[in-house]
Order: sequence, then structure tokens, then C-alpha cells
Amino acid sequence: MADDKKLTPRATDFSAWYNELVLRAELADYSPVRGCMVIRPNGYGIWERMQRALDDMFKATGHVNAYFPLFIPESYLHKEAQHVEGFAPETAVVTHGGGKQLEEPLVVRPTSETIIYSMFAKWVQSYRDLPLLYNQWANVVRWEMRTRLFLRTMEFLWQEGHTAHATHDEAEAEARQMLGVYRDFMEGWMAMPVVTGQKTESEKFAGALRTYACEAMMQDGKALQAGTSHNLGQNFAKAFELKFQSESGTIEHAWNTSWGVSTRMIGGLVMTHGDDNGMVTPPLLAPIEVVIIPIWRKDEDRAQVFEAADRLRGRLRDWERREPARLRVHVDLREGMTPGAKYYEWETRGVPLRLELGPRDIASNQCVLVRRDTRAKQTVSLDTIGEDIEETLEKMQTDLLSAARDRMDKNSYRGDITYDRFKEIMDAGGFVYAGWNGDPKVEAQVKEETKATIRVIPDEEFRSADAPTRCMVTGEPAKHEVVWARAY
Amino acid sequence: MADDKKLTPRATDFSAWYNELVLRAELADYSPVRGCMVIRPNGYGIWERMQRALDDMFKATGHVNAYFPLFIPESYLHKEAQHVEGFAPETAVVTHGGGKQLEEPLVVRPTSETIIYSMFAKWVQSYRDLPLLYNQWANVVRWEMRTRLFLRTMEFLWQEGHTAHATHDEAEAEARQMLGVYRDFMEGWMAMPVVTGQKTESEKFAGALRTYACEAMMQDGKALQAGTSHNLGQNFAKAFELKFQSESGTIEHAWNTSWGVSTRMIGGLVMTHGDDNGMVTPPLLAPIEVVIIPIWRKDEDRAQVFEAADRLRGRLRDWERREPARLRVHVDLREGMTPGAKYYEWETRGVPLRLELGPRDIASNQCVLVRRDTRAKQTVSLDTIGEDIEETLEKMQTDLLSAARDRMDKNSYRGDITYDRFKEIMDAGGFVYAGWNGDPKVEAQVKEETKATIRVIPDEEFRSADAPTRCMVTGEPAKHEVVWARAY
Ligand SMILES: [Zn+2]
Ligand SMILES: [Zn+2]
Repeated sequence: MADDKKLTPRATDFSAWYNELVLRAELADYSPVRGCMVIRPNGYGIWERMQRALDDMFKATGHVNAYFPLFIPESYLHKEAQHVEGFAPETAVVTHGGGKQLEEPLVVRPTSETIIYSMFAKWVQSYRDLPLLYNQWANVVRWEMRTRLFLRTMEFLWQEGHTAHATHDEAEAEARQMLGVYRDFMEGWMAMPVVTGQKTESEKFAGALRTYACEAMMQDGKALQAGTSHNLGQNFAKAFELKFQSESGTIEHAWNTSWGVSTRMIGGLVMTHGDDNGMVTPPLLAPIEVVIIPIWRKDEDRAQVFEAADRLRGRLRDWERREPARLRVHVDLREGMTPGAKYYEWETRGVPLRLELGPRDIASNQCVLVRRDTRAKQTVSLDTIGEDIEETLEKMQTDLLSAARDRMDKNSYRGDITYDRFKEIMDAGGFVYAGWNGDPKVEAQVKEETKATIRVIPDEEFRSADAPTRCMVTGEPAKHEVVWARAY
Repeated sequence: MADDKKLTPRATDFSAWYNELVLRAELADYSPVRGCMVIRPNGYGIWERMQRALDDMFKATGHVNAYFPLFIPESYLHKEAQHVEGFAPETAVVTHGGGKQLEEPLVVRPTSETIIYSMFAKWVQSYRDLPLLYNQWANVVRWEMRTRLFLRTMEFLWQEGHTAHATHDEAEAEARQMLGVYRDFMEGWMAMPVVTGQKTESEKFAGALRTYACEAMMQDGKALQAGTSHNLGQNFAKAFELKFQSESGTIEHAWNTSWGVSTRMIGGLVMTHGDDNGMVTPPLLAPIEVVIIPIWRKDEDRAQVFEAADRLRGRLRDWERREPARLRVHVDLREGMTPGAKYYEWETRGVPLRLELGPRDIASNQCVLVRRDTRAKQTVSLDTIGEDIEETLEKMQTDLLSAARDRMDKNSYRGDITYDRFKEIMDAGGFVYAGWNGDPKVEAQVKEETKATIRVIPDEEFRSADAPTRCMVTGEPAKHEVVWARAY
């Protein structure tokens, strides 16, 4: 049960607010294993809804699910040169099994390119076997020294898509398509607007030809990389001899893509919509959409109110406009707890709508509906409650996206910005769209001096109407417009 | 693509048949890591349907999902004496992380009682916090020396339910309830009849008070333990100080249950329904229920047949009697492959229904429907095809269960059976219901001499009308009627 101490306000200490909220809303908890989290039912329920929505989108674009081993022979990680450099330092290694030392240590997968493409190599002979459009839902482990619940944990849950194609262009189209799927999901389901674009050479995935990303702005103006999609080129195909006979009879290496999103998105949800009272879950992802709080003072009212609440729950769940996705309704029947304490707890946990129902409401065939985000109250007739709830939920989903989009726009800076002004913005939080001469040294210098990184070279629709012509740092001609921000 | 060599017949070598079938039907494959399997899309699709059905059943009985860490501190495993004895010898151990040796090695979870009940101890204070009804879907690792795809692999996928209750009786009722859920799932969805009952002391889960199990009979007469449910008593609650204040104010240890089923069930499905032509998937679990094979000879027919097949697929998928669970239909449009080769491949993969559609069929508004299990053909009108498919799928689901039940009955032996006759039956395959004096030494002797074990002390409905009065081995008075079999 949540205790009723107030959360540290966001304005006071955003980071403390985040940590307290995640615990208090019972989204996750620390475990006895350093850096590994426990995802509690209130957090896991969000993840389940994320999984279901994404899985449907993956299948609608022709992908199938499969499962590959948790362990990877250490030698496999070494077969792609950049890949091992990127991942080997942060792996967990199994050296003993069944009481004996292993001949070859096994790495707990930090990502599965190596094991998956070695299997693809076994299954693919001809162009007729392509494309392979696979996805797996799995846990992965990266040995992080500084961890934070959801945002950076040693073990996390994710999906990793892995595909093989006959041509570069097909792989490129796939990587782009999946970036679009992620964006649709983040905006449509998470109510979290993102900027999409390409990563610079120094920020791309270890082993990729090109990495694309969705970057979201948190309420403190920092960026969260919420999903990535990689065109891997033929790097892994060459390392694992993933080859096929083409239609004209030649032997070619395949072209791969991989793409992933993780439980990190739940952290993004918190920092996009949460407020000083706790979690705010977008209705589409909420494990419970509506909580009914029966209110009574006199003992003789209790039975009547309970019964009315239960009948209402039944009616709402079976409400025909929500077939087959039933309204997710919970009645809080706990005794020995004031209505106020219950309001507080459900607010902290982020349930989108609260429905207050007392004897007087029942007598007048109405109840009070309270929105979590605006805390606006409306009295609604029990005759039209289904419609009212449905409309309010839809409105809330849309409003959350608008509010987040407005905030992102307000904290995005374009046009001529000096490097000094840039530093001020980075301290306050925000995205800066600026010119860059394309030199990795400049990128490294800015990171060193300001902790900001190039989040993406933004896709066309996000670029400024007046493209910057000069590099913000050197004044040299700009090669790209890029988005700078500090990031989680 | 499946090659077209015939499978080794079951009668010749059941074990070879199984291994070949799993590979040929593309259910799973060997991985580069000894003992770890790759679950291919055709197998994983079955697992996804199993997960969905079970998850719905768990939620309908009040359970919620959560996620606990993959790694368990080695010391945790040691806190419950029987538990460590059972599991420590078969663990994989992480000794290095982030390039450094760990102070305390981490065990890759073989099962999660220890880590979960240590968290429960943190969350539970009062009887008001009970019961906790949790489930997690996860991978686990047990260091097996002799592995077989699905049946015994180093890593496997499963669900593990973990609950905490205020009383022994509540925990007992929960353990029993979940055994019933498993049985309903195995019979209702897998079309696999089971015998339920209690495990003997020597066969129970390491750390449990009592273990209940579902035992199924495979086509070779051997038993498969398909699911277990444990009343853990207060063993783990005492080891992890999982305590609560009771209504009367005393401090009590909680009572736990745990229960699990795994990807092993897919092996059970193969050995229950598979035949010499390959996999036979019960319709309710089939990723594809109906495959449409367009047939054409002349090039000018092709477009017409493709178009008709595609229209038919659309009509079947949208067929209103199957709202919201769409008929799962696939059209095999591959070129350069004969219809016969396609029939062969889809039979191997276990798709329940095949629909053959050629120019003459289209002209006469009909098609040919072929059942995978009986290979019976029927010509059906395209006007009633939805109903015909639905009825045939339902009939096939029922028939598969009846056939398996008949086989189990036929190979179950009751009444006076001498120990010599028993040995013959064990060699031929089957379940023997016999009296047992309750002595673990007799159990060990029989296992040593015949490789048979007591699968369960059967629940009442499975017991013989005339209960055996004598121990089959010693002739002493029987304490229980028990089910003997060799097992996977
Ligand atoms: Zn090569
Ligand atoms: Zn104690």
C-alpha cells in the first residue's frame, strides 16, 4: 500500500520525484540483485498492454515471433568487430554450469544479433527463403554501473526484431518501416510525441550501417531514446556467413535489420505524463481504466452502495460499444479506509478515471467522474455513463498527446543560437536544432563541455523551415541540421 | 523448407520419430549452445496460443502478472535446505560481470521461489495485504546433461505462479485450483487427457509440503509430467521471513503455493497427436487453422485461381461467426512447387485443415477440404464453407481428445497385476494402477529394477472401482493406490 507522504515536487528535484513515483505507484521495486528491478503488477500491466499493441502491429506488417537462447558463446560476440567492442565490456558471463567450469564461457545475451544470424545462416539457402521477418520478446542483460528503475537496469525486457533481406533497399525500407511503427505506437498509445531521425556515426548501434531512433522529450527537457531501428547492412551476414543463392544463381550475403523497444518506455511514460500527485497513465495503456469508489457513512448504506457499485461495474464491463475490448473497471471494496485515502492511492497509481458513488448519487441516478490528468469533476447520469466514460477516456488520451506536444514545441529551440545560449538551454532543458559541420570532434567537444549529444539528424518533417547554414560551434558551413539535447 | 524424406515411423523408433518430427515440422532447432533450443515460428506460434489461453484463465481466477530478476544471489538458494539440495547441482552461475569478478556469484534462476518470496516479505505487513496471487512468464535455466528438444532443455520458457495466503487451507485450495486449471487447459485446448494426483515424498518439489501433478500418456505408453502445483507450506515463508500481522494481532508466517507449466507441453502435444506424416496440431492451438492451396496447370488459370483463393481467405477471416477470434487462414501462393509438395509440407507442419481450390472447383462453386488427423476429404460448397470449416475444426478438436483418451484407457492396467506382469507392461508402455505399501524403499527398488516411477497417488475420480488391497511388490497391505509408469 502506498504511504501518504507527498512526492518531492518535479520542480524541486525531478530525479527524486521520478524515483519516488516509480516506487510509490508500485510500478517497480529494487531487488536484492544490484541493478536488477522487480516489475510490479501495476507496471507490468502497462508492459502487457504495450506488448499486445506492438505485437499486433508487428504481425500486421508480416512478422512472426520466435525464441532464441539466452546464452551466447563468447566467441560469437567476437565475430563482428564493432559489435564486440560495443557490447563485450558490459556483459554478464556464465563460467560454471552443473557444478563444473565451462570450456567456453557463455555470455548472457545483451542483444541477439550474433546467435540469430548464425541460425538464419542455417535456414537460408535461396532467395526464395527471404525475407525472414522475425521478432522475439525476451530479457537481456547489460552490466550497467549506474542504474535507474526502468531507464537503465542491468536486466530489462524488450522485443528485438531481426530480419534478413535480399537487397540493401529492402532492408533499408524495413528499418524505416519499423521506425514508423514505433512512432505510431509512441504517439498513438503512449501519447508521447517523438522526433525521428538518423543517429550520427558515433551514436549508432555497434555493428550497424545506419541507426534510426525515436527521441522523446521528458518534462525536464531531457531526451529519452525510446526506440531504435538499425540497417545492419551486410556486417553480420559476413561475420556469420548468412548467404543465399540469388535468382540469377550468384551467391550473395544477406542484408539485415534489427529494431527494439524495451521496458524503458515505461520510464518515458512516467516522465512524459506523471505529475506531482503521481503517475498518469494514458487510458489505452492503463491496466485499470476506471476505478469505482463506493462511499458510505452509515453502516446501513454500505450494502446498498456496494451492490450498486458492483452492478455498475458489471454494466460497464459488458457495455456493448466496447466489444470485444471490455472496459477495464475495478471496484475498491476495501473497508477501514476513507474515500480520501483511496482517491489518493489511485491517483498515485495513475488510474485515468475515478468514479465516486454514494447513497445520494444512487438516489438521484448519477455519479461523479474525475479525470486523473486535469482532476476535472463532472456529474454524469447513470443512464449515459458508458458513453461519458468512453468519451472522457478518448478525450484524455488526445489531451495527453497535445499537452506533451505543446511542451515539446515550447522547449525546442531553432534559428540562430550561439554556443553560449546553447549551454544555457542545456542547463534549463530542451532540444536545440542547430547546424553541424559533420565533424565527430565537434560532437565530442560539445558532449565534453555540455553533456549534450546529437540525438538525431532529424527526418525531413522535423527540420526547420529555414535550415541552419552554419555550424553552431565552429561557424563553418553546416553539413546537417541536428537535434542536440542532454539525454537519459 | 521441409525436405521430403519420410519420417522414421513411430513403430520403428519412437524416439527418432520425435526428434525428426520436431525438426522437420520446424517447431524447434538445435542452437550453437549445447542443450539450448531455438523455438521456430511454427512452434512459437503454438506457445503463444498456449500462453494466451492460460493467461486468460489465470486472470479469470484473480491472478496478476509481474516480473522478477533473472539472477538470484547464490546465498538465497541456500536459505531453504531441501530447495538448495534439489536445485544447486543444476544451476548456471554468473561469476563475472562488466569485466570483473563478482563478490557473490549469481545463479541464473532455475525457478523463482527464493527471489519472489524475499520480495513478498518486503510488501506484506498485514493480513489485509493477503492473498498475493502472482504469476510470471519467464525463461529459466537448469543445467541438464541429456537434453531433448522441448522435453528437457537447459533453458526453457514457462510460467510460474507464486501466491501467499494467511492460512494453510487457503494455500491448499489454491494449489488444488491451479491443478484444475492446468487439467482444463490440457484437456480443453491441448486435447490431451491427464491423470491428476499427488506426488510421493520422493518425487515432490524440492521445498514443498505437497506436490500435485498432471500426468499425460504419450503414444509410446510413457508418462509426461505436464504441469505441477505445489503447496509450499511455510517452508519458504520461514526461510525468507515472509510474515504478517493476523486479524487478531499475532505475527504469523504466510503460506505459499507455486505452480508451473512450460514449453515442455509442446513436446507433449507432438507425442500425443503426431503421426507418421508429421505434426497434428489441435485446432485451438494451431497458428494456422486452414491452409488454402490454389491449384492450376495452365498459366492462364493462375490469376483466376489466385484471385479466388485470396477472396476466399478474406471471406473466411471476416466470417462473422468467428468474431472476434478471426479464422487463422493462410494461402500458399508459392510458385515452382507442386500441389503435392505443398500438401506434404503443410501436413508435416500439422495444420488442421487443408483446402484445395482449382479452376474446376471455382466453376462449380466448391472446394475440397482435407482433415489433417483422419486425412478424410469432403467436397463442400463455397456458400457454406465457413460453417463447414468451423464444424470440422470443432469435430477435430473433440475427436483428438477422444482418441487420446481411448488410447490412455486401453493402455492403463488395473486389478491384480503381478510384479512380473508389471515389468512386461513397463517394457511395452502403459500406466499400471497398483497397491503400494507406502514405503520409499519399495519405490526406489521398482525404479532401479524397471525404470518406472510412481507418477501420482491418483485423485479420487481416477482410482479403481475396486481399490487394490495389497502392495504389488511386497504383498503387504496397500497404503495407497498409485499410478506407475516410465516417464519422460
Ligand atoms: Zn562471406
Ligand atoms: Zn521466522
